[in-house]
Amino acid sequence: MSVQAIAWSPSGAVHIIDQRALPEAQIERDLESGEAVADAIRTLQVRGAPLIGIAAAMGLVAGTRELRGAPRDAFLARIDQVARLLGATRPTAVNLRWALARMVRAAAQTPETWGASAIWERLQAEATAIWEEDRAMCRRIGEAGLPLVPTGTKVLTHCNAGALATGGIGTALAPIYLAHDAGRQVDVFVDETRPVLQGARLTAWELWRAGIPCTVIADGAAGSLMRQARVDLVIVGADRIAANGDFANKIGTYSLAVLARHHGVPFYCAAPSSTIDAALADGDGIPIEERGPDELKTFAGRAVAPPAVTALNPAFDITPARYVTGFLTDRGLEHPPFTDGVRP
Amino acid sequence: MSVQAIAWSPSGAVHIIDQRALPEAQIERDLESGEAVADAIRTLQVRGAPLIGIAAAMGLVAGTRELRGAPRDAFLARIDQVARLLGATRPTAVNLRWALARMVRAAAQTPETWGASAIWERLQAEATAIWEEDRAMCRRIGEAGLPLVPTGTKVLTHCNAGALATGGIGTALAPIYLAHDAGRQVDVFVDETRPVLQGARLTAWELWRAGIPCTVIADGAAGSLMRQARVDLVIVGADRIAANGDFANKIGTYSLAVLARHHGVPFYCAAPSSTIDAALADGDGIPIEERGPDELKTFAGRAVAPPAVTALNPAFDITPARYVTGFLTDRGLEHPPFTDGVRP
Repeated sequence: MSVQAIAWSPSGAVHIIDQRALPEAQIERDLESGEAVADAIRTLQVRGAPLIGIAAAMGLVAGTRELRGAPRDAFLARIDQVARLLGATRPTAVNLRWALARMVRAAAQTPETWGASAIWERLQAEATAIWEEDRAMCRRIGEAGLPLVPTGTKVLTHCNAGALATGGIGTALAPIYLAHDAGRQVDVFVDETRPVLQGARLTAWELWRAGIPCTVIADGAAGSLMRQARVDLVIVGADRIAANGDFANKIGTYSLAVLARHHGVPFYCAAPSSTIDAALADGDGIPIEERGPDELKTFAGRAVAPPAVTALNPAFDITPARYVTGFLTDRGLEHPPFTDGVRP
Repeated sequence: MSVQAIAWSPSGAVHIIDQRALPEAQIERDLESGEAVADAIRTLQVRGAPLIGIAAAMGLVAGTRELRGAPRDAFLARIDQVARLLGATRPTAVNLRWALARMVRAAAQTPETWGASAIWERLQAEATAIWEEDRAMCRRIGEAGLPLVPTGTKVLTHCNAGALATGGIGTALAPIYLAHDAGRQVDVFVDETRPVLQGARLTAWELWRAGIPCTVIADGAAGSLMRQARVDLVIVGADRIAANGDFANKIGTYSLAVLARHHGVPFYCAAPSSTIDAALADGDGIPIEERGPDELKTFAGRAVAPPAVTALNPAFDITPARYVTGFLTDRGLEHPPFTDGVRP
């Protein structure tokens, strides 16, 4: 049973786990306004491309609740306003803008005769649908990967592509949750994933909560484990997949892919088909976010490198398709080329 | 001009930089006893295979100073006792046991007529000789590697195999120091080297102190940099080298070696010839120190992984000789087999 990263609170607020506090504390919050949800996304209280799309959609509902008595036009204008606020929180996540565009469209396409209250209920249903579709996608990704995880499998994963990044059981972790639910013994090696440590902080936490055995390792230890034949399978997530199957994921993914190839370890990329950007021919077209040097040079207020030295901190790298054994999506086990990405 | 990691204090104590405090503070200590030196080695105040050999030798001098008035046999027994204490601090580095064996032998081989005071002076001279030989070795390693570093070279290194790991200008960093001294432009990519961050904390610090441009990267970023052809050369150190050229070095070295091979980047191992253990046929015989999980699970008192989860923390990995372009030792550029290791 995986943790639930997001939910409606009984009062209709957006209920989240503040992921900044993990693993030291499990702090849950009810976000009552669009501003509160925008702040939660901006400050990484919620993160993971699928999850922030869901949070934004739900935030649009929470943030327009008070205006249910307004005239239709004023209410639609308020929806646009809150959507812009939510859409401006993170620059790169395509799910965020996709979810908000879908919400705004759902409101605009209601019959002219509908008042604010009816439109708001339509928004609530649409946000719930986005969330439930994501849960179903996660489950289908898990089912696509389940045959790869017989009992006794030792899986290695990188970063967090789990329940804390989605509305459901995750992407890369979905086959692991389903295998565990099916009574299979699965052991997971978790790359700590520097610099932000999403593996150690988030993946290890959610697997521990679910009772799935896991072992945190330094990112540099993965190659040695593979050489010792202690890894049967690698599954990672993806932030964007090009038509030819090249994909962007957390920095360190490409090194893992080369190491897996070198040692004959199967290497799978798990992601919703909505991550496929069929308009991009290959990985060269994927922009790589360069984050600030302080993620590397400081930790918890302590200097871990001399303040004067340079640090290079790309958040992602590109793994060419030829290193990927297969893609696990909500459509099943797939192989490139991907010419029919679902994203508008 | 490199920093000096160890020296005799005017009072005859062992003067060290407490490397745990770097890069935030440069704390220097005078260690007056064998116990203090053993503690400094065990707690990584001094680290790096050559440096801990020198520190142990000097610690044996400091730790037997008070007994210079004892009978010869009691003094020799005390030497054995302190040497055992110092030798039990770290399991992998062969330099530690080699230096201590050399010191104990030097004492035992003094004429029967020598009293404790004369033996102690012999020990002091032997420890100083070990240190000075190390300085000369570093320089010869640098000279062996200097032709590999023409101006404009971008070198990647892992962990700290520099001045802070030796009595001189380091091993892996020695060619870089000499190239810089020769007026060549050298840029160094420094793997931060989790979990203890010796790259970010120590290598970046000593290069910065020496005015050599360097860029800290997450360990997971090395593969992506090589794919972008931004690395011309990899040089790493070694903690132990088997007769066939397999070698142990900081965890993550093996991954780098595979990545370098995959991308056609030359990969060199730099180490004093005293690191060669000709009695070991291959790397399978090298014991790997497993350190405690808290190096991975906590940072600066903060939990970065759930306390209940397992962490696997091997300090070293084995890189098979076939990945190594060449070995830079004090004897020059070498290739295995090493049948004439200087090690007893």
